[in-house]
Amino acid sequence: MRLRIDLAYDGAGFHGWARQRELRTVQAEVERSLDTVLRSTGSSLTVAGRTDTGVHARGQVCHVDVDPETVVAAAGRSHEPTMDALRRRLNGLLDPDIRILLVAQAAAGFDARFSAIWRRYAYRIADRAQLVDPLSRGFVLTRQRELDLDAMNAASQHLLGEHDFAAFCRRREGATTIRTLLDLHWDRDPAGLAVGTVRADAFCHNMVRSLVGCLIVVGEHRRDATWAAEVLTGRRRDPAITVARAHGLTLEEVAYPADAELAARAHESRATRTLTPPSD
Amino acid sequence: MRLRIDLAYDGAGFHGWARQRELRTVQAEVERSLDTVLRSTGSSLTVAGRTDTGVHARGQVCHVDVDPETVVAAAGRSHEPTMDALRRRLNGLLDPDIRILLVAQAAAGFDARFSAIWRRYAYRIADRAQLVDPLSRGFVLTRQRELDLDAMNAASQHLLGEHDFAAFCRRREGATTIRTLLDLHWDRDPAGLAVGTVRADAFCHNMVRSLVGCLIVVGEHRRDATWAAEVLTGRRRDPAITVARAHGLTLEEVAYPADAELAARAHESRATRTLTPPSD
Repeated sequence: MRLRIDLAYDGAGFHGWARQRELRTVQAEVERSLDTVLRSTGSSLTVAGRTDTGVHARGQVCHVDVDPETVVAAAGRSHEPTMDALRRRLNGLLDPDIRILLVAQAAAGFDARFSAIWRRYAYRIADRAQLVDPLSRGFVLTRQRELDLDAMNAASQHLLGEHDFAAFCRRREGATTIRTLLDLHWDRDPAGLAVGTVRADAFCHNMVRSLVGCLIVVGEHRRDATWAAEVLTGRRRDPAITVARAHGLTLEEVAYPADAELAARAHESRATRTLTPPSD
Repeated sequence: MRLRIDLAYDGAGFHGWARQRELRTVQAEVERSLDTVLRSTGSSLTVAGRTDTGVHARGQVCHVDVDPETVVAAAGRSHEPTMDALRRRLNGLLDPDIRILLVAQAAAGFDARFSAIWRRYAYRIADRAQLVDPLSRGFVLTRQRELDLDAMNAASQHLLGEHDFAAFCRRREGATTIRTLLDLHWDRDPAGLAVGTVRADAFCHNMVRSLVGCLIVVGEHRRDATWAAEVLTGRRRDPAITVARAHGLTLEEVAYPADAELAARAHESRATRTLTPPSD
């Protein structure tokens, strides 16, 4: 039996998603809670977006294969539906910087990583002193100079579509860096913060934060808007691009196709990206 | 020379606004920074909303009287306007959980406390598991049961206007508990959180959080909507009302009249409330 688990976390207290010996990671915390609640050992999660240290998530999705009998036993004699009881028990064990939003039996063919059709991230920046809010300092980057969002949007336009994003990725041996960037634009939210929306079929390592780092340079008029496209075409990491700090970045949403297409989508993704762990 | 200072803070790290020996308070932190920047001693702030331990502020306002020569000296040979330089230097000294949003020379007759015409607070509640966001857990209360906002709004209606709010206040010897409640209503924000807006000429101690505590009881159908009015009329603290937790509360805005009316408003407020420290 496969469970789909939707969750949110404040990345500040984690060494990223992926399990690492002796470090606090989201994967390790959730797997340990599952083991406790299901009285099992070796729960192993597969995730849609393998976030780095300090990166947050509001709409993370993962899956885990479990013995159905352990799920029934865990829900016990609760009056709630089984999956609600499971969610409540997991949240009771987890620290408040991780919250399980939903536990559900996954549809046939569902794979949290390979069935996903896109991932959407948001990057938030307070670029004027009046916008700096101590209550949101954990998930908003502060910049001293006001950003020119028009210039950033012009630069972003050149990056849309299928490209080799090697210039914006930390290279991994044998992994493709070809991705389809579906959306990349900047807006002001109601409070006035600059918010970058970045959506792609998948991301290679450091890609979102490198794109944001590049666009901040353009937004501060240190390079003009055509520079982003030049970097892309160069297909080599440009030292002028710094990877934007992790705490401004949040994984907001992962999208899946209709149930009937889950398996086909997983098959297709595996074929094109099997050597590349999806990550940012 | 009187300076108006607008500021924001994350209340989690403070024992409230008011200076207390050996405890970290907002007033003490800001006064110490002013003393450093102005090379003075004994800077003494007067504040619009004297927030309690754990209560946040986005739109707090205070004033301080300073020697104009120290301000000019503090700004030094900066190319910025004097007040911007002062703000920047204060923020450089303060920890990131306090941010100075604005420093300005106050108009004649301005008094941060007595010139204010109203204070507006917001109280935020996540009342379904899906609404709980680890990124905002520092300023949003979590409740297990979904709130009936219609019932809360019906109850709120009965409390509007000028009343003796003794039933919702921590009593202080010789202080009036008569206040004018200008607005009290509940909405869902775009994320779905329940947000209570509470606006009054001024508040007595614990008043906002007692009102919220009372309305939560109604919203969870533990009492009906007329109960709030009964409590108000009783003019005695009702043990069924718990003071809602501090971390859900944020002082959002303080309003002042046009410059020409600042002094008259201060005179009027002093006459009616001089024995009552404005606070929540």
